[in-house]
Amino acid sequence: MKALRFEKGKLRLDRKVPAPRVPGEALVRVKKAGICNTDLEIVRGYAAFSGVLGHEFVGVVEESPDPTLTGCRVVGEINAGCGSCGLCRAGDPRHCPSRTVLGIVGRDGAFAEYLTLPTRNLLSVPDSVEDRAAVFTEPLAAACSILEQLQPAPGGCVVVVGDGKLGQLIARVLAAGGCDLTLAGKHESKLRLARAAGIRSLPADEIAGDFARSCDVVVEASGSPAGLSFALGLVRPRGTLVLKSTFHGAVEVDTSRIVVDEIRIAGSRCGRFAPALRLLEERRIDVEPLITAELPLDEGVSAMELAAAPGTMKVLLSPPVS
Amino acid sequence: MKALRFEKGKLRLDRKVPAPRVPGEALVRVKKAGICNTDLEIVRGYAAFSGVLGHEFVGVVEESPDPTLTGCRVVGEINAGCGSCGLCRAGDPRHCPSRTVLGIVGRDGAFAEYLTLPTRNLLSVPDSVEDRAAVFTEPLAAACSILEQLQPAPGGCVVVVGDGKLGQLIARVLAAGGCDLTLAGKHESKLRLARAAGIRSLPADEIAGDFARSCDVVVEASGSPAGLSFALGLVRPRGTLVLKSTFHGAVEVDTSRIVVDEIRIAGSRCGRFAPALRLLEERRIDVEPLITAELPLDEGVSAMELAAAPGTMKVLLSPPVS
Repeated sequence: MKALRFEKGKLRLDRKVPAPRVPGEALVRVKKAGICNTDLEIVRGYAAFSGVLGHEFVGVVEESPDPTLTGCRVVGEINAGCGSCGLCRAGDPRHCPSRTVLGIVGRDGAFAEYLTLPTRNLLSVPDSVEDRAAVFTEPLAAACSILEQLQPAPGGCVVVVGDGKLGQLIARVLAAGGCDLTLAGKHESKLRLARAAGIRSLPADEIAGDFARSCDVVVEASGSPAGLSFALGLVRPRGTLVLKSTFHGAVEVDTSRIVVDEIRIAGSRCGRFAPALRLLEERRIDVEPLITAELPLDEGVSAMELAAAPGTMKVLLSPPVS
Repeated sequence: MKALRFEKGKLRLDRKVPAPRVPGEALVRVKKAGICNTDLEIVRGYAAFSGVLGHEFVGVVEESPDPTLTGCRVVGEINAGCGSCGLCRAGDPRHCPSRTVLGIVGRDGAFAEYLTLPTRNLLSVPDSVEDRAAVFTEPLAAACSILEQLQPAPGGCVVVVGDGKLGQLIARVLAAGGCDLTLAGKHESKLRLARAAGIRSLPADEIAGDFARSCDVVVEASGSPAGLSFALGLVRPRGTLVLKSTFHGAVEVDTSRIVVDEIRIAGSRCGRFAPALRLLEERRIDVEPLITAELPLDEGVSAMELAAAPGTMKVLLSPPVS
């Protein structure tokens, strides 16, 4: 099969990869996959990953130890736990110490014609959710995890920093969750996109003064060290900063600000898929305007370049229909 | 009066400072004051403070708008709020946006013969608590604030990083609060001091491997960027890192670790004095072994140098007895 691999510092389309076979896991034919900033960061050295990239997908189960899944259209939680540690037994493999993570840690990913995952990771996609929406389940779930962590839902002044893919999804999820929020970004076209979804969206430099040290919850989703510093500057004393972006390398942080103002910081990564699928099924979130382009897997290398270009939102990859 | 001032980048003993007079505030004659790492950091540029240093003290009220206080031996909470904002009205001026802070922000401090504070900041010291113990009330309260923030008391694996003054006090307070904890440090003599107080204390390099990514709560009290990085490395996924040290300048932090392992960080500064005074009154904490030296205020500049020297624990200053 074809697969987009990152190996020895090089990204290339490999046309002769054997289709994966993992005993006990389901074989999924990928219908669509989405390029995430994490994929771009991996190519910059993040996570020291080597293999097939990609962790956002929708596909069809071709073979499965659980025959009721065969033929189902599915999305898949990306953390595959050991199945036997305390965390896994409690049903949450997201922090299993020996987990693999689809296209990120020790497991080939979704930028390929086929992937495998444990059957317990797979969720059937309701018929009413189209492929172009279902492929957003993973990043939407990551956005939902903020509400999971900050229970009850954050009240007061909430700001999402970053008008890119992740910030846009987080803003939509928090708004759907009842938050009164403001999206802060640097790109007028992206801010317009958020406004079209009913989200109050302002240029970062406009809110810097008015919102300084006054926000109850600030979500950092810009993916840049400057965005993190900006976000920290908005948090009120005893407020909360949620960190969502992962990027390669260390960041300079004014830790005295955190101590003196007793700020709480919450790292936030993967969420559960069920709430995200529900948001899509109930059409409470429209992801279609966030898709910049859909390209065949054959053009995967160019698709990654496009995804990294300024102004691009989500780029989807479609493996060839077999 | 005499006072140890930091001004225009210079620390010096000023022998002719007018005694402070602030209408509506109590005048306190300082009996003893303690040198804190924050004082040393201010001399390195932290907080851009200019004036009389010092925020740890015990003294006697000489004049007061509330005559019942006159003649009382007191300690004083260091944040002086506006008295009228929501936070101050709720009885907690620690984050009042227009607060002054004794010897740190906009208010002359305790390394002097006299200081002033609002009467609501002052607490009477029980007769059984000697001056050399009472002067520790402020840093002990700062240690107590960790228990206030992490209610209920942290269970599981707790590590305090830093065997200096602050780490020693935090370890004693958490142990008195029922925590099963380990103190990690780099100085055998300081680790011995903690062991003598019944605290399990180990060299940092010995615990690095065994405790890596496994601790529920890690308290960073080393006052160094390397200590912060070390502390972060000990926190388990979804664990909590408490930041206590303030220091001048930004610190490089691996924020991806925070995101991927969904670590919580809690900045922690000043605590309430009442629980700290109770610990001293009930003799649950013995601070006497933590005193390296007591010097007259006249020798304040040398005292600051001694406080900054390796191996030194608490240095006390005594203004002349009038």
